[in-house]
Amino acid sequence: MIAGLPGIGSVAWLAVNHLVKELNAELFAEIYSPAFSPKVWLTEEGTVKLVKGDFHFTQDKGSGDLVFFTASEQPYSPEGQYDLADRVLEFAEQLSVKRLITMGGLATDQITDTPKVHGGATDPALIGEVEEHGVLKLAGGSITGTNGLLFGLAKPRNIQAYCLLAETPGYLSFDANAARAVLQVICKIARVEVDMSNLEKQAKENRDAIERAKEASRAYGRTNSRKPPSDRDLSYVS
Amino acid sequence: MIAGLPGIGSVAWLAVNHLVKELNAELFAEIYSPAFSPKVWLTEEGTVKLVKGDFHFTQDKGSGDLVFFTASEQPYSPEGQYDLADRVLEFAEQLSVKRLITMGGLATDQITDTPKVHGGATDPALIGEVEEHGVLKLAGGSITGTNGLLFGLAKPRNIQAYCLLAETPGYLSFDANAARAVLQVICKIARVEVDMSNLEKQAKENRDAIERAKEASRAYGRTNSRKPPSDRDLSYVS
Amino acid sequence: MIAGLPGIGSVAWLAVNHLVKELNAELFAEIYSPAFSPKVWLTEEGTVKLVKGDFHFTQDKGSGDLVFFTASEQPYSPEGQYDLADRVLEFAEQLSVKRLITMGGLATDQITDTPKVHGGATDPALIGEVEEHGVLKLAGGSITGTNGLLFGLAKPRNIQAYCLLAETPGYLSFDANAARAVLQVICKIARVEVDMSNLEKQAKENRDAIERAKEASRAYGRTNSRKPPSDRDLSYVS
Amino acid sequence: MIAGLPGIGSVAWLAVNHLVKELNAELFAEIYSPAFSPKVWLTEEGTVKLVKGDFHFTQDKGSGDLVFFTASEQPYSPEGQYDLADRVLEFAEQLSVKRLITMGGLATDQITDTPKVHGGATDPALIGEVEEHGVLKLAGGSITGTNGLLFGLAKPRNIQAYCLLAETPGYLSFDANAARAVLQVICKIARVEVDMSNLEKQAKENRDAIERAKEASRAYGRTNSRKPPSDRDLSYVS
Repeated sequence: MIAGLPGIGSVAWLAVNHLVKELNAELFAEIYSPAFSPKVWLTEEGTVKLVKGDFHFTQDKGSGDLVFFTASEQPYSPEGQYDLADRVLEFAEQLSVKRLITMGGLATDQITDTPKVHGGATDPALIGEVEEHGVLKLAGGSITGTNGLLFGLAKPRNIQAYCLLAETPGYLSFDANAARAVLQVICKIARVEVDMSNLEKQAKENRDAIERAKEASRAYGRTNSRKPPSDRDLSYVS
Repeated sequence: MIAGLPGIGSVAWLAVNHLVKELNAELFAEIYSPAFSPKVWLTEEGTVKLVKGDFHFTQDKGSGDLVFFTASEQPYSPEGQYDLADRVLEFAEQLSVKRLITMGGLATDQITDTPKVHGGATDPALIGEVEEHGVLKLAGGSITGTNGLLFGLAKPRNIQAYCLLAETPGYLSFDANAARAVLQVICKIARVEVDMSNLEKQAKENRDAIERAKEASRAYGRTNSRKPPSDRDLSYVS
Repeated sequence: MIAGLPGIGSVAWLAVNHLVKELNAELFAEIYSPAFSPKVWLTEEGTVKLVKGDFHFTQDKGSGDLVFFTASEQPYSPEGQYDLADRVLEFAEQLSVKRLITMGGLATDQITDTPKVHGGATDPALIGEVEEHGVLKLAGGSITGTNGLLFGLAKPRNIQAYCLLAETPGYLSFDANAARAVLQVICKIARVEVDMSNLEKQAKENRDAIERAKEASRAYGRTNSRKPPSDRDLSYVS
Repeated sequence: MIAGLPGIGSVAWLAVNHLVKELNAELFAEIYSPAFSPKVWLTEEGTVKLVKGDFHFTQDKGSGDLVFFTASEQPYSPEGQYDLADRVLEFAEQLSVKRLITMGGLATDQITDTPKVHGGATDPALIGEVEEHGVLKLAGGSITGTNGLLFGLAKPRNIQAYCLLAETPGYLSFDANAARAVLQVICKIARVEVDMSNLEKQAKENRDAIERAKEASRAYGRTNSRKPPSDRDLSYVS
């Protein structure tokens, strides 16, 4: 299973969504939780979507079956983060998942063209494996949030797990560079090949959507506009 | 089921309560929750009322049976909002509810005599239906709070649902104009007719009650008044 | 059952504890809750006491058996207040309690020698009853906290309940005057007689204990004192 | 059982960890909780560790079997603290634990070479016993946090318990002096002998690790360093 929720630079979210798209993975399960924020989203067609986690899969292409997990947000409370991680891993066990890759960003306050990837694992042997793919060992420190908990809670369930953190400045909302760095390692571990050319495009689209939403909400405050709100990141409060 | 809890401009609360009154709907069930605020209300007669949600119904008048849900407040915690929405929908399922209309206000920062109504739904077909009644499609964006969750959580229970948001300035406590706009659409969908003349009166009464309560609590701080507190929105802390 | 938890002016706490002492009521049950604050108290003898609620009773002295409930604090979270009130009332039902009196303070920002008592009830008939004892009807308003919830949640359990609020300035920590005013009404309803002479002494002792604790903790900060902490309201953090 | 979680001056944490090391106690059980903070730690080898509580034991060396409990942090919420204390004591009952020693620091705002130890117990007889070992009776006051709750909740489970608080200035992060004072009493109660010479070394190592982590995170902000983060107290947010 390859799992990543939004976090610093949206590294994990960009990476997992890119894999899902490029590998044409199929949605086969959804997870709801009262630990997500109390709101719903509307599609461009006007239909409702709950905040939820999505499980996608692809069938064997030499690499065995792959399952992907992501969500549009992390639960906002600590207990909610533990609860979601636990439920995702329980489901992974039912699916007989043997290995889990989680990921995220490592804030360095520096822009770099070639972000390095740092990693830890549940077993020393797995660390040796990723070091062969150029990953630097995370020696000490802590990883906060649901991505870290998915990693740590995999251990008592006897699921082998890695956590890969790509260097990211920390102030970018969507860092395609860092997501690419993490994806290059994942592709080697999972033995899949993925075209990276749409990754920057996807990051740009997300940045633009946020920008448009900000402008739209400024417009509501200042002009006499009667246009219906149509930017996807705009929030109505009922 | 027509469901609306207090929110921006009290649009949903005004609309559902107006329907209950005008259609002489009968109270048949109540819902308590530790997620409501920890207080009780007193009636003008001095009897106690818990913070609660109320279910009313009217029998078939050409439109089929109608069930109404409202409450005096929204649960204050996100988990509480999910929990209440879930319990209301569970009960709706037991009542064999097939369609749900939720509603709210859409803050525009503008006063208008003819507030437009925007709407989303669980199915594209339903959106087409409300567009025929003059509703503008909500393309993108999010709806926060219990009204949004009632809307979104209806989907996995296979209850067809609409959410209608009337334009409201955002700074009015009771916006009868917005409530009327929403009610006009609801009446067309539910095929009922309702006299709107008391709606503004109701909004004014609520505004006045809040005004009186504010004056009364100012009076306590300044004068030697020994009058018992008698305004309904005045809060004692025991 | 006569129930009161600490609140404004400690009116309910003083009143219930006074009844327990003067009527030599016996402790027969205790209630623990994770909703109380996470600490323990030490007695003057150095033995540990959990934060808890206490149930005392007295056997029939013409008035029927009486059960008393109080606690050293109110749960700090809203859900905790609902939970405690619910568990106390569940226990009251098991004890076949038919009537419940809760109480509290009504902040007026005025000092008065003759604080009036205001009251509400679960039934209009009960209000008429307490009005005969000089209680002013609480027409409208809300009562916040566990004392209010005990009052309101009694209704769905078919326990007849009153809530009596004595006028108190709001800035006194222990208002014996207000407690006496409430006790005079309770004695009439419950048909018991209680000597009030120790009430002011009790309030003074509590005020003095708080004063000593404040001085002691100031002393720690300034002098070279090696004295063991011995004031009961001093808090250690381990 | 000898139990202590981090708190003022890390007195309890230092003391229990020192006993575990010096007595070569063996890890035999772990406790996870969603009430701990939502993060995982990495060892110097790059393997993951959940935030957890550890149970160690030593077999009879004249003192009977000894069980030790500690954790790397206290649950952050009050309910979490009650829940953890309750689960630890439930497990202690299953292990047929008869006596429990908890401990902590007592902030005095003074540095002293010879910190005194203050103590309370579940029974007056136990207080007499520790007074013979030079412990001063805690007469009144409260003890906040999980160490206090372990102490208090032992009583309804009929486990005899002591709580020993060593004087500590309050502003030291790791006070080996205070830990030694508490350990000297524990050794007398539990009839074990422990070499104290490594205690100050352990405290120094912890202080140094925090210092290095602070410098490292300052360095990230200022220099062009590409070094992987390697200090154990540095926190990544994924």
